Amino acid sequence: MREASRVLPRHDMVYLGDTARTPYGTRSSQTVLKFTLQALKFLFDRNCQLVILACNTASAEALREIQQKFLPANFPERRVLGVIIPSVEAAVENLDRGGSIGVLATEATVRSGAFDREIKSRRPDIEVVSEACPMFVPLVETGEEDVRILDAYARRYTASLVRAGVKSVVLGCTHYEALRENIAKRFSSNVRMIVQSEVVSEKLRDYLRRHPEIDERISRRGKREFFTTDSTERFARLGEKFYNASFEVRTAKIDDWQI
Amino acid sequence: MREASRVLPRHDMVYLGDTARTPYGTRSSQTVLKFTLQALKFLFDRNCQLVILACNTASAEALREIQQKFLPANFPERRVLGVIIPSVEAAVENLDRGGSIGVLATEATVRSGAFDREIKSRRPDIEVVSEACPMFVPLVETGEEDVRILDAYARRYTASLVRAGVKSVVLGCTHYEALRENIAKRFSSNVRMIVQSEVVSEKLRDYLRRHPEIDERISRRGKREFFTTDSTERFARLGEKFYNASFEVRTAKIDDWQI
Repeated sequence: MREASRVLPRHDMVYLGDTARTPYGTRSSQTVLKFTLQALKFLFDRNCQLVILACNTASAEALREIQQKFLPANFPERRVLGVIIPSVEAAVENLDRGGSIGVLATEATVRSGAFDREIKSRRPDIEVVSEACPMFVPLVETGEEDVRILDAYARRYTASLVRAGVKSVVLGCTHYEALRENIAKRFSSNVRMIVQSEVVSEKLRDYLRRHPEIDERISRRGKREFFTTDSTERFARLGEKFYNASFEVRTAKIDDWQI
Repeated sequence: MREASRVLPRHDMVYLGDTARTPYGTRSSQTVLKFTLQALKFLFDRNCQLVILACNTASAEALREIQQKFLPANFPERRVLGVIIPSVEAAVENLDRGGSIGVLATEATVRSGAFDREIKSRRPDIEVVSEACPMFVPLVETGEEDVRILDAYARRYTASLVRAGVKSVVLGCTHYEALRENIAKRFSSNVRMIVQSEVVSEKLRDYLRRHPEIDERISRRGKREFFTTDSTERFARLGEKFYNASFEVRTAKIDDWQI
């Protein structure tokens, strides 16, 4: 939201954090799909024309079903985009033949094989080395500051990527950006870090330029709304750290979320 | 379930793990109450006469409301017990005047003040030192084996308890039992560890002896049933490690959980 706001300051935006049911990254595919569809319906009810699934797990586990079945049957004019394809497009840019790409992600995202599939479909010559990093989300959410612990996990989760000599590293979970420094120092400086908040926002701007029929349906009053499914207090406190500004938060009642 | 089965092998038991929405320990009170009521209704629908909230967060945040309002209005003959009172009863046993008790628990449990309240109401002379341990659950759930990391967190979370010279330590979250060794070695050997699976099972047996009107409504075919709200595969894999036996798991559909 912070980066999208920077790139598209006048487009109205609604943020929804499903904090009553996070994390998605350790849940089954069916559960991730169900929770994502419910959240989507809430955003469509608030008149959102385009939704970014700003979660790699949801993008990996739910996006295809949403685009192929849910939207055509229910909301043929709305659009839903994920964060995996923009990250993959950025990761393969300027990559030599036969190079390799590293992907750090949640258990569910790695299990889905979505990054491998999308990279291979563009560049079959590239090797993909994926690693599930289940401790990164709790480390970020508890605000861990002990550098020895952060580095120990960064070392563990990047070991297979370092051994394979990857040329770019996808930080394949929204939380991992907070550990960017700890991860980057495991690699030489010519290894590229793919930071999703940046690449996704830029791809979103490009997408809207290529699709004026969507773009013109989005109001431009620079309005920002924030919803959470759990306590607004905790959400605002953590959210302001990421968003770099204070904001008002409202509760989105999941009781009404039937699909 | 493992310990309760040991103590009451013939009583029929149903286990429900709300794995689609764990962890409860970082959620707001209202969300914990809502999820707990939904789970309770599922168990009552399966004819359970007595339910143990085998979660300290749910016991701290939801039990009072359930016992004072939900049960009298909806299920006056059923009983719901938590894990906090049995643990407190065990912790204050044989404790000298003016001693102190340490409580290690989740953020939500510590915030609720439930352990302090229950200890003080029995023994106003006793000091309670509580510490929230937000990394313990992810460390257990990811099966962390690096002793340096486990010990670093055990040292951090027990520091205030060691300084206060506590005489007993309540492992106030079901997961913490798995870190019993790492925690115990921070204290001298005469400090008592209150292990909930043991004390709760024993108190349950005592409760049923004192309440034959409940006890006689429970069937005795030694039947065990396991339900999860998420993937049965992952639940069975992790569950068998804790239960020390294999079992069949079925899905409890949370879509139907309206209260």
